[in-house]
Amino acid sequence: MKDKKSGKLASIDFTSIRIFDSFWEPRIITNRRITIPLGFRQCRRTGRIDAWKMDWKEGDPGKPHIFWDSDVAKWMEAASNSIALFPDNDLKNNLDYVIDLMQKAQQADGYLNIYFTIVEPEKRWTNLRDKHELYCAGHLIEAAIAHNNATGSRKFLDILCRYADCIHSNFGPGTDQKCGYPGHEELELALVKLFRATEKKHYLDLAEFFIDERGRQPHYFDLESAERREKPQSDYRYWQAHLPVRMQKTAEGHSVRAMYLYCGMTDIAAETGDETLACACRQLWRDVVDHKMYITGGVGSSERGERFTCNYDLPNETAYAETCAAIGLVFWAQRMLCLEPKAEYADVMERSLYNCVLSGVSLGGNKFFYANPLAVRARVLPDSHGKSSYIMPTRQEWFDCSCCPTNIMRLLSSLGRYIYSILENRGIYIHLYLGNTLETVISGIPVTIRQDTEYPWKEFVSISIEPLEPVEFFLFLRKPGWSRQFSVRVNGKPFDIESAEDGYMKINRLWRKGDNVELMLPMPVEEIEAHPLVTENCGRIAVQRGPLVYCIEEVDNGENLDDICLNTCTDFKAEYEDDILGGLVVITGNAWRREKKEWVGH
Amino acid sequence: MKDKKSGKLASIDFTSIRIFDSFWEPRIITNRRITIPLGFRQCRRTGRIDAWKMDWKEGDPGKPHIFWDSDVAKWMEAASNSIALFPDNDLKNNLDYVIDLMQKAQQADGYLNIYFTIVEPEKRWTNLRDKHELYCAGHLIEAAIAHNNATGSRKFLDILCRYADCIHSNFGPGTDQKCGYPGHEELELALVKLFRATEKKHYLDLAEFFIDERGRQPHYFDLESAERREKPQSDYRYWQAHLPVRMQKTAEGHSVRAMYLYCGMTDIAAETGDETLACACRQLWRDVVDHKMYITGGVGSSERGERFTCNYDLPNETAYAETCAAIGLVFWAQRMLCLEPKAEYADVMERSLYNCVLSGVSLGGNKFFYANPLAVRARVLPDSHGKSSYIMPTRQEWFDCSCCPTNIMRLLSSLGRYIYSILENRGIYIHLYLGNTLETVISGIPVTIRQDTEYPWKEFVSISIEPLEPVEFFLFLRKPGWSRQFSVRVNGKPFDIESAEDGYMKINRLWRKGDNVELMLPMPVEEIEAHPLVTENCGRIAVQRGPLVYCIEEVDNGENLDDICLNTCTDFKAEYEDDILGGLVVITGNAWRREKKEWVGH
Repeated sequence: MKDKKSGKLASIDFTSIRIFDSFWEPRIITNRRITIPLGFRQCRRTGRIDAWKMDWKEGDPGKPHIFWDSDVAKWMEAASNSIALFPDNDLKNNLDYVIDLMQKAQQADGYLNIYFTIVEPEKRWTNLRDKHELYCAGHLIEAAIAHNNATGSRKFLDILCRYADCIHSNFGPGTDQKCGYPGHEELELALVKLFRATEKKHYLDLAEFFIDERGRQPHYFDLESAERREKPQSDYRYWQAHLPVRMQKTAEGHSVRAMYLYCGMTDIAAETGDETLACACRQLWRDVVDHKMYITGGVGSSERGERFTCNYDLPNETAYAETCAAIGLVFWAQRMLCLEPKAEYADVMERSLYNCVLSGVSLGGNKFFYANPLAVRARVLPDSHGKSSYIMPTRQEWFDCSCCPTNIMRLLSSLGRYIYSILENRGIYIHLYLGNTLETVISGIPVTIRQDTEYPWKEFVSISIEPLEPVEFFLFLRKPGWSRQFSVRVNGKPFDIESAEDGYMKINRLWRKGDNVELMLPMPVEEIEAHPLVTENCGRIAVQRGPLVYCIEEVDNGENLDDICLNTCTDFKAEYEDDILGGLVVITGNAWRREKKEWVGH
Repeated sequence: MKDKKSGKLASIDFTSIRIFDSFWEPRIITNRRITIPLGFRQCRRTGRIDAWKMDWKEGDPGKPHIFWDSDVAKWMEAASNSIALFPDNDLKNNLDYVIDLMQKAQQADGYLNIYFTIVEPEKRWTNLRDKHELYCAGHLIEAAIAHNNATGSRKFLDILCRYADCIHSNFGPGTDQKCGYPGHEELELALVKLFRATEKKHYLDLAEFFIDERGRQPHYFDLESAERREKPQSDYRYWQAHLPVRMQKTAEGHSVRAMYLYCGMTDIAAETGDETLACACRQLWRDVVDHKMYITGGVGSSERGERFTCNYDLPNETAYAETCAAIGLVFWAQRMLCLEPKAEYADVMERSLYNCVLSGVSLGGNKFFYANPLAVRARVLPDSHGKSSYIMPTRQEWFDCSCCPTNIMRLLSSLGRYIYSILENRGIYIHLYLGNTLETVISGIPVTIRQDTEYPWKEFVSISIEPLEPVEFFLFLRKPGWSRQFSVRVNGKPFDIESAEDGYMKINRLWRKGDNVELMLPMPVEEIEAHPLVTENCGRIAVQRGPLVYCIEEVDNGENLDDICLNTCTDFKAEYEDDILGGLVVITGNAWRREKKEWVGH
């Protein structure tokens, strides 16, 4: 076996993984029992399900919205993921009900979209820029693939293959085809998934076509807006269409759109080996992570346009940091890990997951944040006039634009996907530490890998390797970026960690039943200083322990948190408390605050 | 003469005052030479003048906006003020030109409004809440009074008296009348002015009617929205119409609307002696000044709704603090001073004037701030999508909603109005210290009062009193709220300042030619701490000297101002610098900032 890691990397089907630890399992159970059923109820309550009956007529209430299809699709993806691991007849029946409606809703040519079938059928494909038409198609495809994985049934997948074929025939360089691409990216990554699920190359080609056309001149969005007799936009950064994608060096525009685009680009680079695309992905990654990401892994700091702004513009209270954007960053990081295994990608994936995705849903699983500001005041701003903000002091049951809740559902229901990647039968990468069992096959030998840990609370991870027969492979263990001390024992003996490459400890051996690897990841409380150009954080530090960024809250510190000033040499204590929010490590330290009574005035 | 100050107070016609100091005179000259002519050009360029030709037709470009009348009216008021002091044929001709257009535009019944004459004539008086119809009327009336004062001509005033009579016949408790009131207040205070100018009581009665009806049940805005077949609003705080005005204890809603309402209420209380109204004014004042005002005298902290929010919600970077709202606060404070002479009102007037009104216009007189945030970053936030913000890093030449520039023009052109008030022939109050000469008559004797000072830069004010013959009266000198030491000499002899009442030093004597009063107002640099509940300012102080709140700027301190940390015992130096921005006192002090290079990371 050659000491080479340039082989093809792949993610592992999450259904081969069972998560059982005390941190994630309760959240996954809540997602299954509470959140996903709630998603269906909310979609039904708001008309998103019934809209598929396609019987809305002008003048009726409940006019379908252009993005409703995508909400239902993301719920279907989540529900499919869930029944893949935990059979559930209610969920399955609800899925079947919607799939039947979709089957009837599909047009003769394969077209499948509520809005452009019953509200503005004459406007099909006339406004790719703004109308989410191809975006909805992408989510439906992802849902259909998940459903096929979960059930083995091809019914839903066939519906979406027909739709994808319809899109394929309408879009392309042909004279009778449209040379356009999605205004809200998503279909690109979905088509790569569909290619992988069906092995039909034209899906990959279409994804490449969309990626290659994006931002080219003459600009498709100009052409289509001219056809609509509208003025063109002067600036396509919002849509990441200001330049051909390979020339984009900085993350621009709407953050969720950007994340989904970068996912698609990374997928294609991994699939085709296109180094120019891989290069662009690396450069965009650097820009996002070095200049535009919160310590929480949140991205897209501005509510206006839900977008990236300029470097180091990372305000705390008005942080938008949409849950969907953090989820998109997790998606992208996982794809970057398949392109090249660098622990840095896993560090960001972990950071977002723990600090900006989980913040998006309540422990009870029934309330959601759309925006994840880094400081919140429980102020009720009276506003009887004008649009309300999505930066809210408390979690909400649903939103008019409710992309985030269903995105959380589909991520948590497939969390296993992010833990490992596999290197062509020759090795396995562990990106995330959490209690789980993976059953896989390496070099033809079934292998069970089990992690026992109380991460992120405790500093110890025990990994047992159980091959059916002895088998040689590399075990790559991520050394977390936050970790300054890190030690490994293999079968009780210290292992030399100097061999770490790109942040991964590489252990090569003939693995046998009963082999055991132990990690110590000391988690001192750390004070993190923001980049000096993040001016909002001048004079401030963040407190982090392990992968978790902490906050102080009024519930245990009283009002006026801004008045709390840490002592220069605070001696932090970190202690596990059973009875707070289901158990967590609480950090205490010394600080002072001014005596308010000394203030003189009104 | 009785030692009593409960006599009737009045403001002094600004035309009896000449301002000549080195701080204000250059600004007033710039206002006259640059800003007011620019106002006409901008109004013409944007179609606001030509709209009075009343020849716009559906389909034409440049559709008149509901508030265009008010912009032109405020320019006319400013231009009239200006020619009252400094004859100017160009200005006068432009005024005459517009007045002629207005004369032709006036309808047979006296009605005078562009939008509801040529755009939606059938909708006259159908949406008082939102359509600025009565608001425009108020500004036209103020302009006409100013024009009459300046020129002696009754032409414009007569036009507006006819319009006011038309409004008077349409609004009232009669069965054939509308029981409504302005959605954007302004007409109330204008009608009191018109009453004072014409002595016709029905104008005062109409102002009282509007004030008394406001917020009553059944709610007029509900009734009129029902007539429009629209849903009523659930909350009328935005319009200060959530309660009858005498029951309003807190400042709510749109801040300019609120200021104009409170002006009208105060005017009526002063005019009629209505103590219930005076009480409400005092209570609203307390709420504004104690809970909702920036240290700059800015009010209305939120851009969303340009409104008041909850107590102590005074963020720095997102401070809206509209120039018009600060001007409205100056108007209101001056009226409160006529209701009861308390130096506190003058303190706020001065604070707003120096720190939030003057900030609204560039030294060159040709650029404007609409919002006056307390911290600004020169960030260009890319935004090709969605509405842009009025919180801008640099002053602008004009705005689509351009209420502020013309408001500045009319205030600066009549600044003399705010310096003094007169107590029924028995005394004179000096509220503001600035170099000027007042010619007035007290107890029948012509008196000239002259202030020589380089306030706000220097600490000394010399006041000479020149009666034509000896005359006894009270001279009330404001002891500024910011002043901790204060000394007075009368004809060179120390005067006992213990006698100050409500913040005014009271000097009663038989004044003779050559009498002189000298004030020393030491201006140490002060560190001001915000109320502890203004959480954005935890750990921060403001630097103030005399009436001026200072800022630090990148131009002389480099980037990352937030990183500057004052030494605990900074020894500030205040020195006059000739060559900076036309001359000003620069404050220097010791501070430290971290070494950015020490930061490790990307």
